[in-house]
Amino acid sequence: MEDKILLAHGSGGKLSHDLVEGDFVPILHNPLLAKLDDAAVFELSGRLAFTTDSYVVNPIFFPGGDIGRLAVFGTVNDLAMSGARPLYLSIALVIEEGLPRVELDRVMKSVAEATEEAGVKIVTGDTKVVNRGGADKLFINTAGIGLVPPGVDISGSRARPGDRIILSGSIGDHGIAVISQREGLQFNVPVESDCAPLHNVVADMLEVSGDIRCLRDPTRGGLASTLNELAQQSKVGIRIDEERIPVQDAVRAACELLGFDPLYVANEGKLVAVVPAENAESMVAKMRDNRYGTRSAIIGEVVSSHPGRVVMTTSLGASRIIDMLTGELLPRIC
Amino acid sequence: MEDKILLAHGSGGKLSHDLVEGDFVPILHNPLLAKLDDAAVFELSGRLAFTTDSYVVNPIFFPGGDIGRLAVFGTVNDLAMSGARPLYLSIALVIEEGLPRVELDRVMKSVAEATEEAGVKIVTGDTKVVNRGGADKLFINTAGIGLVPPGVDISGSRARPGDRIILSGSIGDHGIAVISQREGLQFNVPVESDCAPLHNVVADMLEVSGDIRCLRDPTRGGLASTLNELAQQSKVGIRIDEERIPVQDAVRAACELLGFDPLYVANEGKLVAVVPAENAESMVAKMRDNRYGTRSAIIGEVVSSHPGRVVMTTSLGASRIIDMLTGELLPRIC
Repeated sequence: MEDKILLAHGSGGKLSHDLVEGDFVPILHNPLLAKLDDAAVFELSGRLAFTTDSYVVNPIFFPGGDIGRLAVFGTVNDLAMSGARPLYLSIALVIEEGLPRVELDRVMKSVAEATEEAGVKIVTGDTKVVNRGGADKLFINTAGIGLVPPGVDISGSRARPGDRIILSGSIGDHGIAVISQREGLQFNVPVESDCAPLHNVVADMLEVSGDIRCLRDPTRGGLASTLNELAQQSKVGIRIDEERIPVQDAVRAACELLGFDPLYVANEGKLVAVVPAENAESMVAKMRDNRYGTRSAIIGEVVSSHPGRVVMTTSLGASRIIDMLTGELLPRIC
Repeated sequence: MEDKILLAHGSGGKLSHDLVEGDFVPILHNPLLAKLDDAAVFELSGRLAFTTDSYVVNPIFFPGGDIGRLAVFGTVNDLAMSGARPLYLSIALVIEEGLPRVELDRVMKSVAEATEEAGVKIVTGDTKVVNRGGADKLFINTAGIGLVPPGVDISGSRARPGDRIILSGSIGDHGIAVISQREGLQFNVPVESDCAPLHNVVADMLEVSGDIRCLRDPTRGGLASTLNELAQQSKVGIRIDEERIPVQDAVRAACELLGFDPLYVANEGKLVAVVPAENAESMVAKMRDNRYGTRSAIIGEVVSSHPGRVVMTTSLGASRIIDMLTGELLPRIC
């Protein structure tokens, strides 16, 4: 067996088949994928959620995760943000010629573990290899299909004045973990990515009440950009309270050192929810019982003033306008 | 407006939103996509087909098509090869920093036209930008969902001895068009990619009879690799007749010049079908009435001898074993 990926592994010929049938299919084992037809076929009925995301994180391994884990949980979370139970995933690899097989296998095993943990199946896939220098090691695309329970209607445009803003935990962990690994930074307390599947947190929330207005995971662009999206899509104002936003000490220290604002740093295992005020406290209580929501908190509310804008009350009591990210803060963090 | 793509266009911040909302959404206009939530939600019931493919063709524009057209029709065809009616597509772009906006717009307009032509909708998407040198201009992933009509059961494992092999037209056009463009080759008669949606050809075939055993589009690895896949998955032998395989004169000439065998050159608008002998003639007649199947022909049959192998009767009457592609023939043709 070759110890590096060759262009021929993506040619559609013998080496492609060896890689897919000898390597990927056994690792990801499930009957639908093993049929190796051009499309997977399965029965499904109801309100489907469908999403896609490409993962280009650099480096592909980082504290708390790797590109494979990210690719599975990222798409699981995009489905979960519509209230859906994630079911089926596709995976498409673009591999740079020369990638060591051992690294690829490590990523694929991580993909398999992540699907196990999230209870989803990879049913169809694709592998391309590009010339050395034609891509950075490995890009992964996952698309996913889930089922939205009856009565659930979650959208970025449904926030109403008086609603509360819930955040499921501390911000900035993923972005700081990736940048630290890339730049070789060492902190006293190492920062790990928060990369995690969130569909069970959402299921717990839906048990408290089916009436969730908006759900979004603040990945690229961070919490600040996500809140701006919601304010703009719903044409409402959002007011948040700096003191209520959890930030780990190590993340805060790293941000100060690097000149970042944690509000703009990417997360991979956090969600923002907009819910009617009357359910907010009981929802947070329920979320705190979930391992991925232990630091959940109400961080602010939806207001009718300053529509389309996010304003933060700082720890000093001042008001600060929180804009969407402009320019590039952290390239290649997801 | 910036005339080139910047890293910040993929940051999840303001420039990302401007690109997606100001550019992509108007071009691809449809209400599901315009909601801009993390996942698209729609009602669907039945036997779903689900597939994914990444497109890394170099160059991104070539005679007869471009990467956008390829990305739409390629996934439409993968769905069609399960007998499905293609319905919904996702699109995920990985863009190299510095790509001219005008080229990106040209590709996206081509995507929009292709979805129109194929009658499918792009309902969800993702955009990432990687550093200059981190990818070659543009990679596109499309995943797709279709509905398989009741009673249709098409799989690479269903070929039986006595079945006939149908090919929907001439081979090698796409691969030769791309390589000519890349290498700056000029032929007397220019070769154009055959890039085309095939779901209507399949629908026409299913009108003749629901009993299609296998369907596959011979893309990477060419006709030879596809036939080998079918022979191996179905554990049968396949015999084909060289004289019955249509090859355009210009493609044959280019192959001779470049040292390629048309059997291994990629196609993007052709299908191979395995059907029971009794329906083969009427199916071919019906396919020839379709604009994408005018040169359809029965090119061989399934046999019980030499299981897993493909044997071709050459134009000189000799028998030649046709292996799966080994090594790399044409990198980056899809």
